[in-house]
Amino acid sequence: MKKVISAPTMKDVAREAGVALGTVSKVVNGLPVGDSYRIRVENAIQKLNYQVNSYAQGLKANKTYTVALLIPNTIDPFFASLTYYINTALMKRRYKMLLCSTDFDPRQEQEYILMAQNNKVDGIIGLTYNPSLVVEENTPFVAIDRSMGPGIPCVACDNFAGGQLAAEKLADLGCRHVAFLRSGSSLANEPNKRKAGFENGCLSRGLSYEMKILNDGDSFEEFEQFLSEHLSEGRLDFDGIFCVTDRLACLTRDMLGRLQQRVPEDVQLIGFDGIRAFGNTVYHCSTIVQPIPEMAEMCVDLLLRESMLAKPPLVCLPVTYASGGTTCEPFLV
Amino acid sequence: MKKVISAPTMKDVAREAGVALGTVSKVVNGLPVGDSYRIRVENAIQKLNYQVNSYAQGLKANKTYTVALLIPNTIDPFFASLTYYINTALMKRRYKMLLCSTDFDPRQEQEYILMAQNNKVDGIIGLTYNPSLVVEENTPFVAIDRSMGPGIPCVACDNFAGGQLAAEKLADLGCRHVAFLRSGSSLANEPNKRKAGFENGCLSRGLSYEMKILNDGDSFEEFEQFLSEHLSEGRLDFDGIFCVTDRLACLTRDMLGRLQQRVPEDVQLIGFDGIRAFGNTVYHCSTIVQPIPEMAEMCVDLLLRESMLAKPPLVCLPVTYASGGTTCEPFLV
Repeated sequence: MKKVISAPTMKDVAREAGVALGTVSKVVNGLPVGDSYRIRVENAIQKLNYQVNSYAQGLKANKTYTVALLIPNTIDPFFASLTYYINTALMKRRYKMLLCSTDFDPRQEQEYILMAQNNKVDGIIGLTYNPSLVVEENTPFVAIDRSMGPGIPCVACDNFAGGQLAAEKLADLGCRHVAFLRSGSSLANEPNKRKAGFENGCLSRGLSYEMKILNDGDSFEEFEQFLSEHLSEGRLDFDGIFCVTDRLACLTRDMLGRLQQRVPEDVQLIGFDGIRAFGNTVYHCSTIVQPIPEMAEMCVDLLLRESMLAKPPLVCLPVTYASGGTTCEPFLV
Repeated sequence: MKKVISAPTMKDVAREAGVALGTVSKVVNGLPVGDSYRIRVENAIQKLNYQVNSYAQGLKANKTYTVALLIPNTIDPFFASLTYYINTALMKRRYKMLLCSTDFDPRQEQEYILMAQNNKVDGIIGLTYNPSLVVEENTPFVAIDRSMGPGIPCVACDNFAGGQLAAEKLADLGCRHVAFLRSGSSLANEPNKRKAGFENGCLSRGLSYEMKILNDGDSFEEFEQFLSEHLSEGRLDFDGIFCVTDRLACLTRDMLGRLQQRVPEDVQLIGFDGIRAFGNTVYHCSTIVQPIPEMAEMCVDLLLRESMLAKPPLVCLPVTYASGGTTCEPFLV
């Protein structure tokens, strides 16, 4: 199955071309040599399928064509998908990617940034949680979902618009009294704008709403408690719920089942993220879809831009709505 | 938010220690210098938090502490999870990982192997589909799920035992006449042993069985056709089905719904892989669980072993069964 070959060296190329080693080196490094020599070396390179030692060349060029991606893990489907699209966007440009799974650990995040800098990466893309990360000034950095200060562009979906879209959709679907459920990091970050967007949408469409917000470490049972406190004679006070993630929406559907509420007949449910089962089949729930391929492309594009002046501090990319079985779409099956 | 610092150089260390640049270089590279000099340099390194340029050092040591992972993508949950555990297993050992998403493309696979070799990686871990991959003899390689020939260890779960376990479980759950559904690559690979294991289990437990096998490119509608051909007066001939993946098991559940068959009341269903919704919540279906963390650890361990003699050609790691709602477990809710 496996054919073993030994890679040709620069010496082999010199022998094949009948020139000195230094001549091959000059050609490989783009230095001037006589045309007849250049052609002989190029032919020998092609014939032997000689591959340049990119590692040594990168050291010389002070460029490694390597980017580090810091991301909590690739098990969460949002992170996993983002990783895939960033990886392919980089490889399309012939950049390599070092994957650094941080497990949400601020110390790991800082350590991987040092590691990346020590390895002379050309840039770092990070979805990080350490509010006091130290990044070397001359290492380009693009942040995802969290603004890290001047000079560091942040890429996110339009979370505010997504929250607003969720409220508008619930209004369109006939809801009048809705709830907003949130759990997660209390650090300042872009996803936290979903709440303000949702409130804005409720106000503009005349929906009454209540909110239940848990912080990291709070028990999810508090959501079930909250919902059960809003039952009157077996019926829920809410006819629509917006959950801040698809994961939470699915948990909420289970809670509603235990409270004898039918989804979507009694209460309609919209999540956020656009996660599909098995990565690419059906949506887990009706959802506000993040434009992950476009976010990945934007991160790479901003990171590799030559001019820092052209780097905007925050880029928000448009979200869309997708029906996924937890809402009653009027004209769809 | 971001503090900008400029990394100290070797020159800064020399100035701080009051020694010549060459002395610092010797200390950093482990060459002998007088104790008093060594201590002054080490103190200066610590005080300035000087970081060695690992890139240049790796070049010198002919070791880059970098491993390339070739995997189709990180969108499929099995690949995504494997990527995470391989990444953390490598980082625990202070190795960096280049992620190479191949999109199942044999040409991409070959190109990334050349890229990895040109960048002097210390080894490659690959879940690949190119049956004629060319790998340099002196680049350690560990394959996942497909034997690639002498000298290249292959790591997989015990697919044969998993197929057998599925048959045994269906027998334990009261099934008498079962079906096996398979789709996927027709290349010789480890997962294809699930079929032989299942047949073996059926024979040893006296289950009658039928098989429907699709190759890459065949339409999944053929499965629905197969199932509908096995309906007699509205009842399915089978009381149990083993699907070669969880993804196929979920599709099959949908098909059975369209054929008015209830899962698990009328027909019990077991998949393979152990995929959980959102990466870490509930199983999508009852399933044979692959030991992904252990497989990842084994890949890294085999890759970094010094002695090739100690590398076994095939390592199969044990699977387990998990109930996930598509079977009727007698003593569980």
